[in-house]
Amino acid sequence: MVRGMNMTDVVRASDLGITIGALPRGRRNLISDVPGVRVGHTTIDRGEYQTGVTVILPPAENPFVHKMTAAAQVINGFGKTLGLVQLDELGTLETPIALTGTLNVGKVHDALVEYMVELCKKDGIELTSINPVVGECNDSFLNKLTDRPVEKEDVFAAIKSASADFQLGAVGAGRGTACHSLKGGIGSSSRVVTFDGKEYTVGVLVQTNHGRLADFTLLTGPEREQLLHRYDGAAPDKGSCIMVLATDLPLSDRQLRRVLRRCPVGLIRLGSFIGHGSGEIAIGFSTGNQFDLNNHAAIQTVHQLDERQIDQVFRAAAEATEEAVLDSMLTAETVTGWKGHTKEALLPLVRPFLASGEFMPDRS
Amino acid sequence: MVRGMNMTDVVRASDLGITIGALPRGRRNLISDVPGVRVGHTTIDRGEYQTGVTVILPPAENPFVHKMTAAAQVINGFGKTLGLVQLDELGTLETPIALTGTLNVGKVHDALVEYMVELCKKDGIELTSINPVVGECNDSFLNKLTDRPVEKEDVFAAIKSASADFQLGAVGAGRGTACHSLKGGIGSSSRVVTFDGKEYTVGVLVQTNHGRLADFTLLTGPEREQLLHRYDGAAPDKGSCIMVLATDLPLSDRQLRRVLRRCPVGLIRLGSFIGHGSGEIAIGFSTGNQFDLNNHAAIQTVHQLDERQIDQVFRAAAEATEEAVLDSMLTAETVTGWKGHTKEALLPLVRPFLASGEFMPDRS
Amino acid sequence: MVRGMNMTDVVRASDLGITIGALPRGRRNLISDVPGVRVGHTTIDRGEYQTGVTVILPPAENPFVHKMTAAAQVINGFGKTLGLVQLDELGTLETPIALTGTLNVGKVHDALVEYMVELCKKDGIELTSINPVVGECNDSFLNKLTDRPVEKEDVFAAIKSASADFQLGAVGAGRGTACHSLKGGIGSSSRVVTFDGKEYTVGVLVQTNHGRLADFTLLTGPEREQLLHRYDGAAPDKGSCIMVLATDLPLSDRQLRRVLRRCPVGLIRLGSFIGHGSGEIAIGFSTGNQFDLNNHAAIQTVHQLDERQIDQVFRAAAEATEEAVLDSMLTAETVTGWKGHTKEALLPLVRPFLASGEFMPDRS
Amino acid sequence: MVRGMNMTDVVRASDLGITIGALPRGRRNLISDVPGVRVGHTTIDRGEYQTGVTVILPPAENPFVHKMTAAAQVINGFGKTLGLVQLDELGTLETPIALTGTLNVGKVHDALVEYMVELCKKDGIELTSINPVVGECNDSFLNKLTDRPVEKEDVFAAIKSASADFQLGAVGAGRGTACHSLKGGIGSSSRVVTFDGKEYTVGVLVQTNHGRLADFTLLTGPEREQLLHRYDGAAPDKGSCIMVLATDLPLSDRQLRRVLRRCPVGLIRLGSFIGHGSGEIAIGFSTGNQFDLNNHAAIQTVHQLDERQIDQVFRAAAEATEEAVLDSMLTAETVTGWKGHTKEALLPLVRPFLASGEFMPDRS
Repeated sequence: MVRGMNMTDVVRASDLGITIGALPRGRRNLISDVPGVRVGHTTIDRGEYQTGVTVILPPAENPFVHKMTAAAQVINGFGKTLGLVQLDELGTLETPIALTGTLNVGKVHDALVEYMVELCKKDGIELTSINPVVGECNDSFLNKLTDRPVEKEDVFAAIKSASADFQLGAVGAGRGTACHSLKGGIGSSSRVVTFDGKEYTVGVLVQTNHGRLADFTLLTGPEREQLLHRYDGAAPDKGSCIMVLATDLPLSDRQLRRVLRRCPVGLIRLGSFIGHGSGEIAIGFSTGNQFDLNNHAAIQTVHQLDERQIDQVFRAAAEATEEAVLDSMLTAETVTGWKGHTKEALLPLVRPFLASGEFMPDRS
Repeated sequence: MVRGMNMTDVVRASDLGITIGALPRGRRNLISDVPGVRVGHTTIDRGEYQTGVTVILPPAENPFVHKMTAAAQVINGFGKTLGLVQLDELGTLETPIALTGTLNVGKVHDALVEYMVELCKKDGIELTSINPVVGECNDSFLNKLTDRPVEKEDVFAAIKSASADFQLGAVGAGRGTACHSLKGGIGSSSRVVTFDGKEYTVGVLVQTNHGRLADFTLLTGPEREQLLHRYDGAAPDKGSCIMVLATDLPLSDRQLRRVLRRCPVGLIRLGSFIGHGSGEIAIGFSTGNQFDLNNHAAIQTVHQLDERQIDQVFRAAAEATEEAVLDSMLTAETVTGWKGHTKEALLPLVRPFLASGEFMPDRS
Repeated sequence: MVRGMNMTDVVRASDLGITIGALPRGRRNLISDVPGVRVGHTTIDRGEYQTGVTVILPPAENPFVHKMTAAAQVINGFGKTLGLVQLDELGTLETPIALTGTLNVGKVHDALVEYMVELCKKDGIELTSINPVVGECNDSFLNKLTDRPVEKEDVFAAIKSASADFQLGAVGAGRGTACHSLKGGIGSSSRVVTFDGKEYTVGVLVQTNHGRLADFTLLTGPEREQLLHRYDGAAPDKGSCIMVLATDLPLSDRQLRRVLRRCPVGLIRLGSFIGHGSGEIAIGFSTGNQFDLNNHAAIQTVHQLDERQIDQVFRAAAEATEEAVLDSMLTAETVTGWKGHTKEALLPLVRPFLASGEFMPDRS
Repeated sequence: MVRGMNMTDVVRASDLGITIGALPRGRRNLISDVPGVRVGHTTIDRGEYQTGVTVILPPAENPFVHKMTAAAQVINGFGKTLGLVQLDELGTLETPIALTGTLNVGKVHDALVEYMVELCKKDGIELTSINPVVGECNDSFLNKLTDRPVEKEDVFAAIKSASADFQLGAVGAGRGTACHSLKGGIGSSSRVVTFDGKEYTVGVLVQTNHGRLADFTLLTGPEREQLLHRYDGAAPDKGSCIMVLATDLPLSDRQLRRVLRRCPVGLIRLGSFIGHGSGEIAIGFSTGNQFDLNNHAAIQTVHQLDERQIDQVFRAAAEATEEAVLDSMLTAETVTGWKGHTKEALLPLVRPFLASGEFMPDRS
């Protein structure tokens, strides 16, 4: 069972009987249902520092040696994600993906460089070029971001701790973020798709920091007005949402990019309209097509999905993203940080409404 | 009042008391609320031919002489829209925008060429280059599309008939289209935004041919299942949705493109997940920045919105698109065409549920 | 042997002993050195009408049934090329590629629709959607373009005549074009690349209508000044160059797009600086990856080049494009057309300088 | 006068009487001919560390407060340039641009964050979001790049030293780079364009690390073969070229991107074919359109060039880039660094050929 920090019982959408979409969830309902994918966090919870780093590791021991097919889609580029130039050009991922707070991306980038240089040394490779991918959300409301408190060692620790079982909510890169005016964080979900009788997994992990309470579609009725007033629900959308998608389904980089374009469907169903200030970026990789550094055959065999059957994957991406965003909120505890700022947890606020049906009406 | 073909009483979402979003509608609640913008249709309703052409005219008498700032955003490029290469490069629109059925785009393109050549002759201009913009949806279920029944004269007639008052529903380029497994067509809506005390209009016109009934968010309860069964609600999404946005707000082409990226929010709220087979393309122009062919000053003055205030425009685009899609369905009559195929009108089907609240639950 | 219209002896760069680059030419030194690729022209040479259509046919009998991996790269989008939206999204080509004069693209598009509908009928396919690709150059200096003289039958005739042996110069879509202020037209060239001991061909066909004589790098010395004065060599660059690349090397659509980005290298070496008015667009396809309409296996096997070895292909694209442009000029005869306008052939003008070395200095 | 490190007499292309293109040079023939633009270097020349950082400062004291219109164009994305996501989305530059060695970009990014946070503090702004732009070339042949020797203080020192007069050659971010198999470095050049009688400057600065000697177009004759053999002139092109363009001409971000697409023309004329391993990226800004943080007027007035007159700017970009690349080589001294590797200076090698005309034949 997945547990969040300081919470004895983590409640996810599935625990509340909430159904999102029609496709079956993976076993853990996490991005790590994609075989080999692991996630690690380092959470910084020290007074005015409420931040952290989250890393998503592709299955290969050394992703520089076994590059994965990858793609990115910028939905709204008001953000500082690093590493997309090469990802777009070559269609491959060669490092872990790291997420953190906005002003900390340079340091985390440098930490990934150092990690990869050392990792390659073990494989006898003198690394002179590497393309780390680092996403970010702006956690400056809860976190004294200008001090960039995430250090190199925090990144290494997150990588070391990476596991298929990992926490959700106000942890890692989600420690200081907000979503729909309440506490956001790290969410994850997965869907199982079936092609020619074989099952594949589409997993999503999100760092949520977007949206306004006034737009949140899961609240209805008179209590909604009360919450809006209390939590400044109409403040502008400034924040970002980073979406990381992994799958073991063989997809080309072009197909992967098409799939990523459906991730925002999940955000929008929960009420986002992709605000100006919210840097929304989706990054994806397929473990179904790997390129071995030591394979020098000129003509390489790769696999991809019959394009006509891709709708199922589009749905999986939309559904998993929506549920991941919702879970990022449901699993996040209330956090107080810099300047005494507080973001409230969603779950306690909506518990009273769960019975009455004013929260999360049936959408099946 | 807006009236559809053969319908004595057109009912729009606003007539049903449905509220979409928070921004005020324009006077007509049509794209033509943007001053000077006009729309014309030629509807072909001849047995196996159920198709047509719809033209959106920018305010200038001759748009080649007064080019408008313009942009396009391909959401899902499985479509045959013509004219985007130059639009993207130069950021201007120099012809009316025409919409029609997929296989007919070449002929409509040629008609616009002829129209512009003649129009320019009147202004003493020998035209040797022009970039018509033609969007399309695939109406081959109801229409014998392979015969390309839209002729040059139909395009000229649509232009000639263009007016600020125009019909919605199963007319023009929407005659043969389907939306969420029921009859789709032409929809339109507008929103008023206010900056520095001055009002501007964001208007949207859509040609809807996308989505599945199984995904349509406005139906709930037991009747939904019944309709799904009757209307093949789970058939794949093949079709497209073309979204045309106009505004008198001065926007740069980059800003316009950002606004267009929020149009699909409206589709997604009604249940679309941007299916593989659905070519979703948004095209927009601002009448607030025009370039006069006869102004040869090297340095030209243009206006654009303070970027930090753009969220209001994003919302207007999302809301107007959502309402336009809904109106395209509510105003469309049942149509029977090629091979006796039929697409049912939405309104008669949901009338029984309107009172019970099973259709269109309050989303404010 | 390749022969141009009305010329007893066609002279190509290779006949003059001109070497461009280091890679070996293919057997014919034409795009049709790629196995199965054929080219056809219909040339219109009727007084004020000096224009035509050129078609490039991929090897498949029916390209809708056997789609080729394809990509496009817009170098400068001041052009009216049709069909790139879907090509970009799906990465496949499903029709012949046609080239013609600017205002004629709509009619040629429609002709390709009709051709494909009929072709599919023979295969028992009721076609309702097809994406023709049509490129263009503006031949209005020599041709009464506003009349769009290329008819449907001309397109069908060009397709019917398609062959691996085809003419270069002032033929087909190149009948009315100009290049570097002199007569341009259709050029083609090919290069052989070798991977793992196996040979593949990279072929290019160009429709040239770009550049100024003042920028043309092949002329030096005092005669250059004289020619510049005579042929208005400093007039603005308005025209376009369409580059079509074919290869039997298996490339992904992303790789193909990278290769296409090197085509302009060839133009630039001859003096182009990619002028504002010149719509420069490259379109490419690989016959090494085909998708069979009747193959419904969900996971499909494709092949692609080891990315680290792609430089050889980049060079091939650059060299073949440069030579194709030069050949389009060398093989083009002088043409007089609309309003008595004339564009002079290059070869007679430079013959006197060939011996002196003032034309085409050694660049090996 | 511009002086390189340890060189008493810096020789630039202009000093050799070499003419590139037809447009007049600016006064200094540097990017800093654009009023207010300054450049600073920190050069690291310590045995195995041969690297550095170069910063280009826009005129505004605080570029976050006075944002410049900006754009970027990725020519070949095999590179690690940081900051383009937001630059593309918003069309503005809000920090100095820094250039350095590949693996050092994270640290330099972080230094720019710190610099901007402190700078904003002085203006009473609590900065929580900033988008540094950092370009890079891979200097690992001469420099022990894995140690990332460029520290925060080096970046601050470079900014502090920034001036309109600055060194070229093996300095700053160009200390450890190579170009066409010989020593590359920092080059710069400018061109003056005139519109409506008013002069504007287009300035370019390049960090050169691309190309092969075998492709270098300035060497001809028998000596070329000898040099090729000595300097491994056919080794693969791995390296990159970063091109920074500045102008005081008012351009929109779209226009600026079009101009940037002509920068590679300069590279190609000198022999580059934009190799796979060479990350070629152009970044540009216009000081002619600034956005003041404290101007909250909703509708803002901006200026842009009449699009029809843009060819002159295209030429300026191409010419200045070509001359900047050539100057980066001519002004660079021989450097020996990591593992005793050496890259030879161009000038001493070609001096013997200058008289004979075998170097740099007249291209006017």
